[in-house]
Amino acid sequence: MSTFAPPVQRLVSELSKLPGIGTRTAQRLAFHILRASEEDAGALAEAIREVKERIGLCEECFNLADERLCRICRDERRDRAVICVVEEPSDVIPMERTHEYHGVYHVLGGALSPIDGVDPEDLKIEQLYARARRDGVEEVVMATNPTTTGEATALHIAEGLRERAPGVRVTRLASGLPVGADLEYADEVTLGKALAGRRAV
Amino acid sequence: MSTFAPPVQRLVSELSKLPGIGTRTAQRLAFHILRASEEDAGALAEAIREVKERIGLCEECFNLADERLCRICRDERRDRAVICVVEEPSDVIPMERTHEYHGVYHVLGGALSPIDGVDPEDLKIEQLYARARRDGVEEVVMATNPTTTGEATALHIAEGLRERAPGVRVTRLASGLPVGADLEYADEVTLGKALAGRRAV
Repeated sequence: MSTFAPPVQRLVSELSKLPGIGTRTAQRLAFHILRASEEDAGALAEAIREVKERIGLCEECFNLADERLCRICRDERRDRAVICVVEEPSDVIPMERTHEYHGVYHVLGGALSPIDGVDPEDLKIEQLYARARRDGVEEVVMATNPTTTGEATALHIAEGLRERAPGVRVTRLASGLPVGADLEYADEVTLGKALAGRRAV
Repeated sequence: MSTFAPPVQRLVSELSKLPGIGTRTAQRLAFHILRASEEDAGALAEAIREVKERIGLCEECFNLADERLCRICRDERRDRAVICVVEEPSDVIPMERTHEYHGVYHVLGGALSPIDGVDPEDLKIEQLYARARRDGVEEVVMATNPTTTGEATALHIAEGLRERAPGVRVTRLASGLPVGADLEYADEVTLGKALAGRRAV
């Protein structure tokens, strides 16, 4: 016999489906929700429903959006001459956090990975080509992850852009040592990239 | 300007209120919920609502219950001669996990802490005295936490029971070294308790 009443069991099981939440953590969260006020628990449930109901993809860049266009595409101060290509909507956050990027984005919705069945037509690649061909676009910054699939995606798109939007400059985020890192603990691949990308000082 | 649309922002903020969930984790969870199917997200929201709607306190022991009595009080195989006193409903789980306890519980709803304004009348102490006086009750096991407030609560109740239910044996969970622990790393209070509670072998 389980110690929990079925509704508690159900909540623990739903919470366990979240990434990084094991059964123990799910139990802790469930007991917190049980102790919380009706109002706080209701606000959480409502926020979950609302986000699914009201959030869709931006028609321009496929970032998350609560209107036809996302907040960045709606912002007139953003520089439309530069498009930063990322894999997922969540990748926009670290880019914005730098406060160094003032262009717009293009969210692919994943990375190319033929063994996982992710082919070019599964990503928003054609839409990127179409955007890149528009008047005024000068540069596409490939900011896919520095992983096998992210690199493959960047290469595939760079090639495609050379053909489909020939006047546009295609760049890639630098790979190298993270700031504050210790050379001694750097993995050889990162160190190799840092060496290959060395600059005059 | 925030990068997030208001509904996403709201979900991140509601998730951040959960214990042990910082902003970064809340963002990760929110993006997971955004990627999840309508059905899965709905199930989570529904589980939160349902738990608040359907779960109350057991009329007998004040554990969580989805009926008038909790699952343990409803279970006829449990030994009603032994009552284990715990602080919170979540404390029932580790006790049950031992598979060594076959009595019933009494959930106080906290521990005595005058500086935090928790006095005897704020806990289910009178209700415990009433239960302990009933026919057939032989032992009350104090399983409040081995903390200052938990110890104070156990002492207060033990005293009260001596007066209000004189025939009943009152016991306390043993304090000592956790199984598998290393003496070298034991704190002096625990080690002191282990020494004081030493047994013949």
